[in-house]
Amino acid sequence: MAREETSPRILDLPIGLAARGTRTESDSMGEIEVPAGHYWGAQTQRSLVHFNIGEDRMPKAVYHAYGYVKKAAAMVNARAGRLPRWKAGLICRVCEEIVSGGLDGEFPLYVWQTGSGTQSNMNVNEVISNRAIQLLGGRLGSKEPVHPNDHVNMGQSSNDTFVTAMHVAAVQATGDRLLPALARLRDAASARSREWDGVVKIGRTHLEDATPLTVGQEWSGYAAQLQDADDDLRHALTGLYRLAIGGTAVGTGLNAPPGFGDEAAARIARLTGHPFESAPNRFAAQASCDALVRFSAALRGLAVPLFKFANDMRWLGSGPRAGLHELVLPANEPGSSIMPGKVNPTQAEAVLMVAIQVMGNDGAVAMAGAEGNFELNAFRPIIIDNVLRSVRLLSDAMEHFRAFLVEGVKLDTARLAADVDRSVMMVTALSPAIGYDSAARIAHRALDEDLTLKDAALRSGVAESLYDRVVDPARLTRPGVASASDVT
Amino acid sequence: MAREETSPRILDLPIGLAARGTRTESDSMGEIEVPAGHYWGAQTQRSLVHFNIGEDRMPKAVYHAYGYVKKAAAMVNARAGRLPRWKAGLICRVCEEIVSGGLDGEFPLYVWQTGSGTQSNMNVNEVISNRAIQLLGGRLGSKEPVHPNDHVNMGQSSNDTFVTAMHVAAVQATGDRLLPALARLRDAASARSREWDGVVKIGRTHLEDATPLTVGQEWSGYAAQLQDADDDLRHALTGLYRLAIGGTAVGTGLNAPPGFGDEAAARIARLTGHPFESAPNRFAAQASCDALVRFSAALRGLAVPLFKFANDMRWLGSGPRAGLHELVLPANEPGSSIMPGKVNPTQAEAVLMVAIQVMGNDGAVAMAGAEGNFELNAFRPIIIDNVLRSVRLLSDAMEHFRAFLVEGVKLDTARLAADVDRSVMMVTALSPAIGYDSAARIAHRALDEDLTLKDAALRSGVAESLYDRVVDPARLTRPGVASASDVT
Amino acid sequence: MAREETSPRILDLPIGLAARGTRTESDSMGEIEVPAGHYWGAQTQRSLVHFNIGEDRMPKAVYHAYGYVKKAAAMVNARAGRLPRWKAGLICRVCEEIVSGGLDGEFPLYVWQTGSGTQSNMNVNEVISNRAIQLLGGRLGSKEPVHPNDHVNMGQSSNDTFVTAMHVAAVQATGDRLLPALARLRDAASARSREWDGVVKIGRTHLEDATPLTVGQEWSGYAAQLQDADDDLRHALTGLYRLAIGGTAVGTGLNAPPGFGDEAAARIARLTGHPFESAPNRFAAQASCDALVRFSAALRGLAVPLFKFANDMRWLGSGPRAGLHELVLPANEPGSSIMPGKVNPTQAEAVLMVAIQVMGNDGAVAMAGAEGNFELNAFRPIIIDNVLRSVRLLSDAMEHFRAFLVEGVKLDTARLAADVDRSVMMVTALSPAIGYDSAARIAHRALDEDLTLKDAALRSGVAESLYDRVVDPARLTRPGVASASDVT
Amino acid sequence: MAREETSPRILDLPIGLAARGTRTESDSMGEIEVPAGHYWGAQTQRSLVHFNIGEDRMPKAVYHAYGYVKKAAAMVNARAGRLPRWKAGLICRVCEEIVSGGLDGEFPLYVWQTGSGTQSNMNVNEVISNRAIQLLGGRLGSKEPVHPNDHVNMGQSSNDTFVTAMHVAAVQATGDRLLPALARLRDAASARSREWDGVVKIGRTHLEDATPLTVGQEWSGYAAQLQDADDDLRHALTGLYRLAIGGTAVGTGLNAPPGFGDEAAARIARLTGHPFESAPNRFAAQASCDALVRFSAALRGLAVPLFKFANDMRWLGSGPRAGLHELVLPANEPGSSIMPGKVNPTQAEAVLMVAIQVMGNDGAVAMAGAEGNFELNAFRPIIIDNVLRSVRLLSDAMEHFRAFLVEGVKLDTARLAADVDRSVMMVTALSPAIGYDSAARIAHRALDEDLTLKDAALRSGVAESLYDRVVDPARLTRPGVASASDVT
Repeated sequence: MAREETSPRILDLPIGLAARGTRTESDSMGEIEVPAGHYWGAQTQRSLVHFNIGEDRMPKAVYHAYGYVKKAAAMVNARAGRLPRWKAGLICRVCEEIVSGGLDGEFPLYVWQTGSGTQSNMNVNEVISNRAIQLLGGRLGSKEPVHPNDHVNMGQSSNDTFVTAMHVAAVQATGDRLLPALARLRDAASARSREWDGVVKIGRTHLEDATPLTVGQEWSGYAAQLQDADDDLRHALTGLYRLAIGGTAVGTGLNAPPGFGDEAAARIARLTGHPFESAPNRFAAQASCDALVRFSAALRGLAVPLFKFANDMRWLGSGPRAGLHELVLPANEPGSSIMPGKVNPTQAEAVLMVAIQVMGNDGAVAMAGAEGNFELNAFRPIIIDNVLRSVRLLSDAMEHFRAFLVEGVKLDTARLAADVDRSVMMVTALSPAIGYDSAARIAHRALDEDLTLKDAALRSGVAESLYDRVVDPARLTRPGVASASDVT
Repeated sequence: MAREETSPRILDLPIGLAARGTRTESDSMGEIEVPAGHYWGAQTQRSLVHFNIGEDRMPKAVYHAYGYVKKAAAMVNARAGRLPRWKAGLICRVCEEIVSGGLDGEFPLYVWQTGSGTQSNMNVNEVISNRAIQLLGGRLGSKEPVHPNDHVNMGQSSNDTFVTAMHVAAVQATGDRLLPALARLRDAASARSREWDGVVKIGRTHLEDATPLTVGQEWSGYAAQLQDADDDLRHALTGLYRLAIGGTAVGTGLNAPPGFGDEAAARIARLTGHPFESAPNRFAAQASCDALVRFSAALRGLAVPLFKFANDMRWLGSGPRAGLHELVLPANEPGSSIMPGKVNPTQAEAVLMVAIQVMGNDGAVAMAGAEGNFELNAFRPIIIDNVLRSVRLLSDAMEHFRAFLVEGVKLDTARLAADVDRSVMMVTALSPAIGYDSAARIAHRALDEDLTLKDAALRSGVAESLYDRVVDPARLTRPGVASASDVT
Repeated sequence: MAREETSPRILDLPIGLAARGTRTESDSMGEIEVPAGHYWGAQTQRSLVHFNIGEDRMPKAVYHAYGYVKKAAAMVNARAGRLPRWKAGLICRVCEEIVSGGLDGEFPLYVWQTGSGTQSNMNVNEVISNRAIQLLGGRLGSKEPVHPNDHVNMGQSSNDTFVTAMHVAAVQATGDRLLPALARLRDAASARSREWDGVVKIGRTHLEDATPLTVGQEWSGYAAQLQDADDDLRHALTGLYRLAIGGTAVGTGLNAPPGFGDEAAARIARLTGHPFESAPNRFAAQASCDALVRFSAALRGLAVPLFKFANDMRWLGSGPRAGLHELVLPANEPGSSIMPGKVNPTQAEAVLMVAIQVMGNDGAVAMAGAEGNFELNAFRPIIIDNVLRSVRLLSDAMEHFRAFLVEGVKLDTARLAADVDRSVMMVTALSPAIGYDSAARIAHRALDEDLTLKDAALRSGVAESLYDRVVDPARLTRPGVASASDVT
Repeated sequence: MAREETSPRILDLPIGLAARGTRTESDSMGEIEVPAGHYWGAQTQRSLVHFNIGEDRMPKAVYHAYGYVKKAAAMVNARAGRLPRWKAGLICRVCEEIVSGGLDGEFPLYVWQTGSGTQSNMNVNEVISNRAIQLLGGRLGSKEPVHPNDHVNMGQSSNDTFVTAMHVAAVQATGDRLLPALARLRDAASARSREWDGVVKIGRTHLEDATPLTVGQEWSGYAAQLQDADDDLRHALTGLYRLAIGGTAVGTGLNAPPGFGDEAAARIARLTGHPFESAPNRFAAQASCDALVRFSAALRGLAVPLFKFANDMRWLGSGPRAGLHELVLPANEPGSSIMPGKVNPTQAEAVLMVAIQVMGNDGAVAMAGAEGNFELNAFRPIIIDNVLRSVRLLSDAMEHFRAFLVEGVKLDTARLAADVDRSVMMVTALSPAIGYDSAARIAHRALDEDLTLKDAALRSGVAESLYDRVVDPARLTRPGVASASDVT
């Protein structure tokens, strides 16, 4: 039980350091100069030097999630008497600043760093330590009285907390952005489905003319595919609710008291409003990123139907004169720098590209997920960066696709009707009555002699009364068999 | 209602055609010669000519599944009075021959054919037609009195039945082979976990020495990862239980009576013992293969932890003298054609390669799954071929890995103990008592001066009583904090 | 120098063993029963037991290639006096039987085996040993006087020879099948390009109507893409010409005399007619499969333009009435089991699926290629299996696509002309004369008021003489600027 | 021939617009407000509204490349008399500002936009137009006297210039960053190879102890793999040297004079110092991104050996006590937030993750590359974004890996020597003298009885003189066969 020290006075200082030049910070490797205007310490600075690779920074969402993790840990440590209440309270206060984004500028590290995320964890620890020291009027870099390892990281390791923060960040981004955007797009597709329920069109299989269906039926398929993707994403979230925290260095919980992980997970659940819980096996939870690999697959499972949806949109809108042109796409911008008046399916193209990127990201996540060794998967930064990028891209692309294409698209009803009139494949409906082989001969005749289907049928001996009864486009969009009584 | 004709006499002929040379068959394109010794008809023959691409044949499991589909359809058609009972009964009889594998030799088509699977559907229809005609003493190729399209395919299209057969085949292969093999491997890992629960070893993170855990704890992680993969596969199966049958050509159900799909799905469920049901939206079910894309992702979700498990095995078994060699792998075969006496982790290598192949297959499935257009995904053969290949590879690889590695592997207890004795990272346990920075100095001293951790600690001023109390390897494998009372 | 023993008498026995039941064979692990009707020995048998995973067998092409490798090695060993000439000659004779396919039934091993390919190398060694012993009238399994390791494998390891055989097999399959098929397809595309050089059509960008080009120009693009793929494949072959042989176990050449690898590579070059040579760095050649990873990328580099070619074909052939239908695809087979008279772009679909599979295979190859460790890449079987599968699939798919689609496709000239007549995007040609903004107004007017472009232009004040001079579809298919003198 | 107008006065104004609020700009869709402090016009602004998807902006390198493209086009147009010299000169001046990065803040568009890159082309056209108008003292947005389409885009389309800029950007990034970084890493590996040429170590195949080689030999393999990657990258660049410019809208060159493309490509070559030339077939060049797909594959071809190099480094550095620990990795930063004194192979981990990301990016590039339709591949932004990201990541990761690991790594010579002493696999050298089977028995005996190899050999009857002559570790690192005279 920690001595319950009297709380020192906490200053009411806004975020920010006025100092210029550098300040000396230290870690177990020795001293290093850091920018005096920033809160971070020695390990963050070393990482900046050793890992300024590319332009990708560890996503801010990971740090915001870490804010919850560190806060929960401090609360549990205080409750257990391991950490004085005033110290825990101070850590919690800084964590709230992190969660709110107020300290975003203090987290400069790159994605391509240590595979455990230790440097980002230490970045958080150092910033909390120094911001707390500032609020106490202490000397930055002194690690007194709030030490980045001994206090902020108390009962924790990067190995359990970083993957915990990854789960929290992914769950939050999904709940805040992805699922709402998906629901809105699904609802927009459903609305068009209802709106166009009575409009008959020629179906296409293998891209070739087939039997008719309604435009509403076609759109009901898009909505259903999106609903399935939503269901699957929610299932994949259940894996993310299980948090590694409490496993510390290798999953055993060394240096954390019994029950620490369970309590911390419960705290995180309360703080975030998501049903987080302790992972049933922390060795698996730290040695793998399986739950994130599965979640990435669920993101891909959304990208795949989005690809189909957007692809259909651009093909159905192709033309205006030499394409299918069942749909009139909104003209959001001029389409060409050289061809005046051109309108292109640009929103669909953006969705198609986003879908491909999500599939590429997912491939990287899966390979990284396989490469864990022994007690740690040390390919975590690439996993969370790709997952959060995919979440963001899908969310934004769905919003734009909905607002600037789905909700604005119109039907070219003249074209739809003309295509139905000229269709040959409605011969299918005659098949139960006259047999497949006879029906095939009529279809070939219509095409060879450039006849309407009706002309070809009548010239082939089909009674007009039968034809008119059976080949009714609207009726062909529903289950039902022609002249069943004649069929054997 | 079909006239209930009197059943003709059904002959009791074994499977097989004695004829040599060729027989003339026909379809809507005209006549074509087919081998007289086979049941298939014109469309199968055309496909054989036009699509002998590579060596991959459509998996037999698809045809076996089609046996159930055609049988269920015939039963529903008979019950509705659309098909005479004797004709339906005959179709059912041939379907049973298909299901049992007795007609496997009659399904020669390649994977790389029409994207709808129509040619394989027609292959089934033709074989059933001709086998039925044989049993009736009729003339093969006459299509009388059992017509491949009008009767065997009654109320069906390739567009709804082929993807139905894909689902059925995948569910059966998973239930029959994959899940049992997975359960056995998980149980074997759990057994080793229990067996070695008390053996302490040095953990490794980033491949570097870390704090200790027990061998049993490490193996509990493998078992837990496999259990998660099992759970996820079972979830993914729920998508496969939904069958497209009843949608016919474009999802509307044209040429099938209302309720046909629901009844057929219920029949298939009864015949197979799996909880199949009618797809809630047949437009989505025929225009996409989303459920199979998700199932493929679940297969990948098994490949990923298998990769980690097998990879750990080969590294832990590396040596025997210049490697880690915590494990003694079974010597199943000589390892080298040039180096006498070499033993290699060959079972692990096979699993690693299988895992990679499953990931590659999965990439193909996802891209194919995205490429549906309008009312049909015409990339079905590649999807089912890759899914079934992955199921088979994973099943077999897990069985062999279990039998020839997991169940036979032994511990090198001397090496395990020696590594624990020489470990430096147990200094972590001192950290709560003496602080991270002091602990770090001791660790560096031990390594720099080639001391044991204890020597380094004592020379650095740690009391021997404290050291002995805190740095107890077995204790370090459980949650707990040293000297909490001294920590602030 | 080996004692030059007198050659024993060599019997003239055909391939085949009449014995039934089993025969005892042995290796360093002990004795094992093998089928008496086969030549293989103990290690092959152990592999069959331990690795019957899936249905994929090591491709026969690898064994045929091994025939050249073992023959070359024997010749070099004999010339160096390490192996008696009669023994080398006997090995060579059996190697020729292997190359010719005569012993294909003796190579039953699975792809999913040891990652070095040792078991397949030993399979070859054992078969050569026993077949040679048979030809000498000896006792199978005695390893006397032709020992699988000491003689057939002399100066070799699996580590250098298996990857050598992989290269040889890939080069041969490419030269024998892939490049000829590719050349034929390219030539067929070129022929159509020339044939249709004067036929004007409406171009499409973003799927939307654009300025015109000729059908011949469009097809020249397909031919050019294929030519580029051909060039790149030939470049990638240069990496495969470098053989690891001579490196033995770890690249040092231990147990092979100096110069062995160079001589063996030269022999292989002479035997196969391909410019093989010794790898400049055998450590790299054995520790990686980089050359095959690059070759796989070149295969993908063919799959990508094939995907585009086939995709264009199916879209241009879509319809016949509700699609683009510029092309009339050959009707090779009935397209639907339910829709009579339907014709589908099945050859294009097969190519699209093959292209996707090649991309999936390539992903597996790349990951496997990255996973080498220290002196060996132990992921070789998956690499060669995928590469050879891709070569085969691409070769066959191109042949069928050419014969059954490209060479038979026809133009729907009426549709092409009608689309040109109704086009609006030819307004682009007016743009240099009247400015982009004015031209855009005319285009929008034509579409909004459903006018022809000419009507819209004239009503907007464009002089008819200017219009007729500038908006000439055929002229618009060539470089050139309208009324340059009026442009500022 | 354009009238050669007298040049108006050009003001010497620095880059920048002091205005606040918004300014009205217009395009063929009508008017729109844009920020008055920026040069961009209506189409850029529309894109910002419709496509703010994710955080990825079109890479600045594309705009810098566009600076060269627009400059070259203006020069060719002026020389042909189509554009007044003063106007061309003004455009060139602004292009130089673009190339130097001075206008980077004016290119805000997102990656996920129209698939042709039209919006980024128009962004460039608009910025050049308005900056030129500013320098002439004109009214921004008036398009007078430098019109974005009619003058800046003269003779061009996005369809030919955007892919041209993509090629230029990729070539420049490769030449400026990637190839130098690669050469430095290769040279560093070669230097270590030479430095450690005489240090014998135990080789490992399948991770298991094998015959010895020198550390220098092992490192020569890394250097050779990198050299091969370098060669392949240079080959892939040859495809990028071929520029589409001159094809305009669909490849025909409409609205560009004959020869325009050839001259423009030659200008770009002179301006950049890279051997650019006109693409031999512009239909292929605009309808595909095949050259970039191949270049991406070459990037992957570098990622694959980097993965192996970095992976070997971390395994060889594992320990320090329970790992292989042949290498002592530089301690760049503390490795753990909980385990004091831990040093991790963080640079290797960053390289491994970068390699995986490059492989994932490459998958996205390949799929995007396959999805072109008719006269355009409309998946260009995703392709160039991924290619440039991969170039940057590889460049930076190689630099850091070299500086912070390769150049600082040291040998643990004690461990290397101990492993050689205890090795059993040197028995291989005895094999030619005593036969594989006898050698295998000795190896097994050594392991089973825990003997040194020499003890086991002598106890098995090998003469000590033979042993000492043959089993000399240094000799075993070179080609050579023991006692060839005794071998038959």
